Amino acid sequence: MSTADRAERVPKQDRSRATRQRLLEAAVACLAEHGWAGSTVSVVAERAGVSRGAAQHHFPTREDLFTAAVEYVAEERSTALRALFPEGAAAGDRRAVVAALVDLYTGPLFRAALHLWVAASDEEQLRPRVTELESRVGRETHRIAVELLGADETRPGVRETVQGLLDMARGLGLANLLTDDTARRERVVAQWAALLDGALD
Amino acid sequence: MSTADRAERVPKQDRSRATRQRLLEAAVACLAEHGWAGSTVSVVAERAGVSRGAAQHHFPTREDLFTAAVEYVAEERSTALRALFPEGAAAGDRRAVVAALVDLYTGPLFRAALHLWVAASDEEQLRPRVTELESRVGRETHRIAVELLGADETRPGVRETVQGLLDMARGLGLANLLTDDTARRERVVAQWAALLDGALD
Repeated sequence: MSTADRAERVPKQDRSRATRQRLLEAAVACLAEHGWAGSTVSVVAERAGVSRGAAQHHFPTREDLFTAAVEYVAEERSTALRALFPEGAAAGDRRAVVAALVDLYTGPLFRAALHLWVAASDEEQLRPRVTELESRVGRETHRIAVELLGADETRPGVRETVQGLLDMARGLGLANLLTDDTARRERVVAQWAALLDGALD
Repeated sequence: MSTADRAERVPKQDRSRATRQRLLEAAVACLAEHGWAGSTVSVVAERAGVSRGAAQHHFPTREDLFTAAVEYVAEERSTALRALFPEGAAAGDRRAVVAALVDLYTGPLFRAALHLWVAASDEEQLRPRVTELESRVGRETHRIAVELLGADETRPGVRETVQGLLDMARGLGLANLLTDDTARRERVVAQWAALLDGALD
């Protein structure tokens, strides 16, 4: 490759990466707002300001696009969560950690993921991919939770305590789907953070 | 009304009630299996072995049919839950009570309700009805949980403890949507029933 070719190539890769990212973000927004039935590659391409052909170059099928989108945004959220506690969390941060974990399940990412899960429960071609994705994202969230809560999983019951907390966070996300459940959620989080303190120490 | 008229009338009411019940049960099964998009009055009427006209006599709109169906089955489940502990529950029953509460969220009723919630989050004509239904069913489930757990809600934090438990149950239902999560769920339930014991006594 000549130097000139190489110089041209790098910005092209950058442009391609930027296009891909725009498509992924548009896909999550679309899924959160319109659900699986209203989310097609064309709708997302238009929203991202990308041609349908370019979208299909990046993501050959609708399933490719939407599973990649939920995974991408989940990774962004994990990174943001770790960044909230760059030095790790102290014991006094536990309530803030529980609140931050619960926040993972109340925004547009959770709405998008929920639409994808529910669609996957009815559609055979989506189901194995979403199952695999959910288990990967779930393991990563569990890992972060253990780390930030300073939970010692070698002690009996601690693993299940953390799992139950994440199940609760998911349930709180569901309770927030139709109405703004913020006030009630804050009281539940405060109480369970206190119970967790007793269970983890 | 003559005696003969009355004699004829009672079985007619019975038949009408039986038809209504068949429609409601078929509607929940349909919603759990095919989701909102695949659930129409015609599909349900056929599944219930009832004419489309008769179905529309009972439920003028699709929204009427499906919200009534989820409410009907939720009431059936509440009755069945109370019947499990006809004398109320003793302190030693707590783990069994938690397991029974969690079971409310893992069967076809939860799948049906989840499809309805998710559809309601995108559809304006469904949203207020499902919001109202969810809040009514949620209050009733909370009432049963408080009663069976022997929780004293005048003590600070107890109300939120019970709420968090029901949020966790909902989250466990979601985790069971794509894969059979029974084994993990049983371990989480055992651990959280123990934590709850400490929090409620």
